[in-house]
Amino acid sequence: MRTWRLAVLACLCAAAAAAPAEAKTHHHTWNITYQYKSPDCFRKLAVTINGESPGPTIRAAQGDTLVVTVHNMLDTENTAIHWHGIRQIGSPWADGTAGPGTYMYHAHYGMQRVAGLDGMLVVSVPDGVAEPFAYDGEHTVLLMDWWHQSVYEQAVGLASVPMVFVGEPQSLLINGRGVFNCSPAAASNGGGAACNAFGGECGWPTLFTASPGKTYRLRIGSLTSLASLSFEIEGHTMTVVEADGYYVTPVVVKNLFIYSGETYSVLVTADQDPRDPTKTAPGRAVVRYASAAVDHPRTPPPTGPRWNDTASRVAQSRSFAALPGHVEPPPARPDRVLLLLNTQSKIDNHTKWAINGVSLSFPATPYLVAMKHGLRGEFDQRPPPDSYDHGSLNLSSPPASLAVRHAAYRLALGSVVDVVLQNTAIPPPNGRSETHPWHLHGHDFWVLGYGEGKFVPEVDGPGLNAASARGGAVMKNTVALHPMGWTAVRFRASNPGVWLFHCHLEAHVYMGMGVVFEEGVDVLPRLPASIMGCGRTKGHHY
Amino acid sequence: MRTWRLAVLACLCAAAAAAPAEAKTHHHTWNITYQYKSPDCFRKLAVTINGESPGPTIRAAQGDTLVVTVHNMLDTENTAIHWHGIRQIGSPWADGTAGPGTYMYHAHYGMQRVAGLDGMLVVSVPDGVAEPFAYDGEHTVLLMDWWHQSVYEQAVGLASVPMVFVGEPQSLLINGRGVFNCSPAAASNGGGAACNAFGGECGWPTLFTASPGKTYRLRIGSLTSLASLSFEIEGHTMTVVEADGYYVTPVVVKNLFIYSGETYSVLVTADQDPRDPTKTAPGRAVVRYASAAVDHPRTPPPTGPRWNDTASRVAQSRSFAALPGHVEPPPARPDRVLLLLNTQSKIDNHTKWAINGVSLSFPATPYLVAMKHGLRGEFDQRPPPDSYDHGSLNLSSPPASLAVRHAAYRLALGSVVDVVLQNTAIPPPNGRSETHPWHLHGHDFWVLGYGEGKFVPEVDGPGLNAASARGGAVMKNTVALHPMGWTAVRFRASNPGVWLFHCHLEAHVYMGMGVVFEEGVDVLPRLPASIMGCGRTKGHHY
Repeated sequence: MRTWRLAVLACLCAAAAAAPAEAKTHHHTWNITYQYKSPDCFRKLAVTINGESPGPTIRAAQGDTLVVTVHNMLDTENTAIHWHGIRQIGSPWADGTAGPGTYMYHAHYGMQRVAGLDGMLVVSVPDGVAEPFAYDGEHTVLLMDWWHQSVYEQAVGLASVPMVFVGEPQSLLINGRGVFNCSPAAASNGGGAACNAFGGECGWPTLFTASPGKTYRLRIGSLTSLASLSFEIEGHTMTVVEADGYYVTPVVVKNLFIYSGETYSVLVTADQDPRDPTKTAPGRAVVRYASAAVDHPRTPPPTGPRWNDTASRVAQSRSFAALPGHVEPPPARPDRVLLLLNTQSKIDNHTKWAINGVSLSFPATPYLVAMKHGLRGEFDQRPPPDSYDHGSLNLSSPPASLAVRHAAYRLALGSVVDVVLQNTAIPPPNGRSETHPWHLHGHDFWVLGYGEGKFVPEVDGPGLNAASARGGAVMKNTVALHPMGWTAVRFRASNPGVWLFHCHLEAHVYMGMGVVFEEGVDVLPRLPASIMGCGRTKGHHY
Repeated sequence: MRTWRLAVLACLCAAAAAAPAEAKTHHHTWNITYQYKSPDCFRKLAVTINGESPGPTIRAAQGDTLVVTVHNMLDTENTAIHWHGIRQIGSPWADGTAGPGTYMYHAHYGMQRVAGLDGMLVVSVPDGVAEPFAYDGEHTVLLMDWWHQSVYEQAVGLASVPMVFVGEPQSLLINGRGVFNCSPAAASNGGGAACNAFGGECGWPTLFTASPGKTYRLRIGSLTSLASLSFEIEGHTMTVVEADGYYVTPVVVKNLFIYSGETYSVLVTADQDPRDPTKTAPGRAVVRYASAAVDHPRTPPPTGPRWNDTASRVAQSRSFAALPGHVEPPPARPDRVLLLLNTQSKIDNHTKWAINGVSLSFPATPYLVAMKHGLRGEFDQRPPPDSYDHGSLNLSSPPASLAVRHAAYRLALGSVVDVVLQNTAIPPPNGRSETHPWHLHGHDFWVLGYGEGKFVPEVDGPGLNAASARGGAVMKNTVALHPMGWTAVRFRASNPGVWLFHCHLEAHVYMGMGVVFEEGVDVLPRLPASIMGCGRTKGHHY
C-alpha cells in the first residue's frame, strides 16, 4: 500500500486585521481509506477520513493556523482536498484567508466527493469579539445526496455514448445518515444483499437535544452532488443570519432553499410545545426536546414546497442582504464584463455542458504550473469568448455547437469583473431548464441580481451598477442560477493564481460546466517543489 | 478529465547480438479507460486498453524497438504497466532486452491487473533465423480468472479485520471470454440485473480453425489472479517447446499445468477425426476443424486432473529441461544463498503474508529513486533476514511473528544468488498449503530443483550445485512453489536497478508476499526527470 503525504496549511487570518495574540495552531492528521459504510442502511464503499464519512468537523478561531496532514492510503488513486470558501490569498497552492463563518471541505478530484470525502469547517470569531446575534448553542448540519452505484460507474455512464445519467439519488443524508427503503419493491433500485446491512450506522440522526426556550445556531452546508434542497424544521421558523461566511440582514424563513456548495447559519428557538410532533423530512433528522417523553416524531414530515416552485426560490435568493457594517460594498463599476451562456449539447455523441460553446476539460499539467513555467503546449492559448450572440438567443433552443478545450480567461490583476450567468433549456426530449449553483474558488463575489428570461445588456446592464450603488449586495462564494434565468455577480481579481468557477453539481462539472480564471501568475513567487508531480510538472522547477 | 502520458520504450535487442539490419520501430498508442465489459455475460467495469480487455497482442521481431505511448484517461487513478519477462537491462525505468519468445504485459499498480488491464507480447525471431521446431501457424491464448466484485471491494476485503478473502473466481476467461451461469440458483453468486448483459461479447471463443494435418504453435500465457490452471485440448496431445521465452527440450503432455505469470509455447497437430467432439474445459474455448460440419462441441469437456493432484504437477515441473545449445548454463556455485520462508499470519488482526517474517509494503517513494538519491527515510535501512531457523521449522506450524516493512535485500552487482523458496501450511482452520508462482523482475533465473517437505541445507544444498553442473536447467522468470515443498533458483545480479520478486497471485502480493532486490543502483546514470512525481520524488533531481 502506497501512502502519500500532503500537508495542507490553512491560515485563517483576516487580510486586513492583525492576528489576535492568542492565535493557536491546530494540527490534524487524516488517513484517507476506502471503508464499507451503510449511511442509509445500504452497504457500499465510501472514501473516508480516519474511517468516517463525512469527516470530522474542523473548528478554529479566526487568526488560528490549521495544519492538516493528509495520508492518501488509497491503493491506486490520487486525491485533492478543496477548502471550500477559503480564499487562499497569497499562496494559491496551500494556505489562505477567511473571515469567521461556516465553510466546508471536500475532495475535488474525479468524483471522489460523491464517494463521501467531505466535511465541515467552522471558523469562529476570536475570543472577546462579539457577533451581531446571540445564541445558546450551535450545531453543524451537513447535507448530502447519496448513490448506491460506485462513482466509477457514475463517471463511465456520464462519459458513455449515449450518456447514462446518474439519475436521482437513492437517499438524502443529514450528517452522513439516512434510511433507504430496503423493501422488495425497492430492490430493483439498489436493494438486495447489501441492503439492511447497517450495523447501527444508519437511521434518522438526532441533530441535537433542545432545552425549551433556548436559541440554537445551526451551521448548515450542502455538498449535494445533484440535489437542490429545501431545509425546514417542523413547527419552527428559522432566522437566516449568515451565508457563505458573511453576515446577512436577518431574514425569517419557514424553509431554507440551499444549493450545493452553499452554507448558511440559521437561528432556531425551541419555543414549541414538545408534545406536538417534531421535525422530519424526505432527508430527515430529529430535533429532540429535552423535556420530550419520546425521541421519535409521531407524524409524517411536512411536505415542503413543490420541487418546481421556482418563483419561491428566486424570491428567497433575492431576500438576502448584507448586514450593514459587516460587508465591504462592491466597486461602483466593472472593468470587464463576461456574459456566460450555459448550454448542454453533444459532441461526437458525448453529452457535454459548455460555457459560450467551450466545454472545460482539465489538462494533465495543472494550469498554475503550466502558466508560471511557460509550458504553453499544456493548455489552449486561445481564451474562451467573453460573450455570445445574445441578440439572437432563443433560451428554449440555444446554440448547439461546442468544443472541448483546456482554456482559461486571463484577467488583469486587480481588475473588477462582472459575470452574468445565463441559463437555457436542455435540448429535447428533456427540454427543461435546471438550477445550477455556481462556485468560485479563491474569491468571494457580490451578488448583483437575479433575473428571469434573457439578460439584455442594454436593458439589464445599468441595473447592475445601480444595485451595486444601492448597497446591501450579499457576498458569497456560491450562487444559484435559477431555471430560465440569469444571475449577475461582481468580484475583484486580486488573488494571484489560477481559479476555477464552476457549477457545483458534480456531474455537471464532470461534463465540462466550468471556466478557469488566471490573474497575476507572473507576480507569484517561485512555486514550491512539493506541488510538482502531475503531467509535465515532473521534475520541473526553476 | 485528466490525461496522463507515459512513453514506454522496450528495446527488444539481445544483449550480446547486434540488431539485424532490418530492425523496425513499432509505435503503439494506448488510451486507458474504464468500460463496461461482459466477458462472461456479466456486465462490470473493466480497465481497458483502447476499449478492449485484454488489450491488443503486441508483435515484434527480436531487435525491433517498441514505443508504447500510454494515455491514462482514468479519472482519479495512476497506473503502471509491467512488461512481464522483459528484463530492462541498462535502463530499469523504461527500455529493455529480451530474446524471442512469448511474453505478457499487465498493470502492476494496486489490483488493476485483476480489472482487466493486460495482454500478450510476442517477440519473433528475426527474418532468416530458424527456430528449432516447425509449425504452420500460430495463435495466442491468454488465460485469466475473473471476479464480478470490483477490485476496490476485493482490496478492502483483504485489508479488513477480519480479512474477507476474494474467494473463488466467478469465471475463467480464455482470450477474454467465458460464460457465467446466470441461472437464478447462481444469482447469489453475482447474478441479477447485470447478468446476461452480454451484447455479443461473451461466450466460448473459437481459438482458431485448424486445417487437418497442419501443426500449430499456441503461445499460452496465464495472468490469473489466483487460479493455478490445467490447459488441455480434448483428443490431442501438446508438445511443449518454449517456457517463459526460452526453448525447452520438447516434452509431450496431455495437459499443461500453467501458473500465474508463466508463458509456454506448445505445438498441436490437427491429427484427429473432426467428427469426434473437439475441445472444451471449465474455462473453455473451441478449436474448430476447417472440415467440421459444426463449430460447437457436442459432448462435455474432459474433466482434467484433480485440483489437488500435487504429484502430477511437481512431476511436470521437473520434466522441463533447457534445449541444449539455446540456453546459457548456470554458474557453478552461488556467491550468496537466500532461504526464504513463506508464511501466513496476522498482525493487528490483519491477515498478511510474510517472507522470513517480513511482510512487504510498498513505500510512497519508489525504492529506485529513494536509493539513488539517498532518501534514507523513505525505506527501512535494515535488510530482511537472509534465512530463518530451518532447524526447528515445523511446516504445519511455522513461526507466526511478522512485521510490515519497506525493506530490501542489497545484492552485490554481478554476484550469483541462489534463492530457495520454502512453502508451509496456512494456520488453522484452513491448514492447507497452497501453490505460489514466484515471478522475478529484471532477470531470468535458472530453476535448480523442486523438493517435497523441508529444505535441509546440509542435505539438499549440494544437490543444487550438482543440478547446475548436470546441465539442462531451464531458464524462466516465473516458477511454481508447490504445496508443502521447496523450489530453488539461481540468478546473476547483473542488472543495475531495484527489482521485485513476488508471488504472482494478486491477493498474495497485496498481502505482502514479496521481496525487493537492489543491485548496482550506484552505477546507474542520472535518473530521468520523467519518472519523478511520487512520494518524496516531487521536484527531485540532481
